[in-house]
Amino acid sequence: MDPVLITGLIAASLTTFAFLPQSIRAIKTKHTGDLSLTTLIMLETGIVIWIIYGAMISNIPLLAANIVSFIFITITLILKIKYG
Amino acid sequence: MDPVLITGLIAASLTTFAFLPQSIRAIKTKHTGDLSLTTLIMLETGIVIWIIYGAMISNIPLLAANIVSFIFITITLILKIKYG
Repeated sequence: MDPVLITGLIAASLTTFAFLPQSIRAIKTKHTGDLSLTTLIMLETGIVIWIIYGAMISNIPLLAANIVSFIFITITLILKIKYG
Repeated sequence: MDPVLITGLIAASLTTFAFLPQSIRAIKTKHTGDLSLTTLIMLETGIVIWIIYGAMISNIPLLAANIVSFIFITITLILKIKYG
């Protein structure tokens, strides 16, 4: 496979799944006090707009990556709202 | 301006600057216990690889967005390592 493509895929995988450990941590500890609500709202809103943009330009990798990110950030945001 | 381009720029701005409030919060409170170190390391590594990818394909917006993100995530990661 093309090394440039592989580099892009590694970068995308890391940033797409980055919020998985954060959501697991929040589920386990039930503590989210140190998380910035503004950061989570900006990420959530930004990702929804990335999904709209991905649909507009019919870009499947962009759509897929952001739908996965959306799941983990939504879990983290819901827990932040719940636990404060 | 093209509405598709505007949508992409709004999405990019939100996700690029999302870690600014998180780094400000960590600086102010000196508490980072609820942040996932794994998440921060995945983001930091992912963003470095995005920068390499951006350089490989000579994509200035990708480079610019990830260099800005890198600054805020690096600050947050350093504070996480410092405060635990």
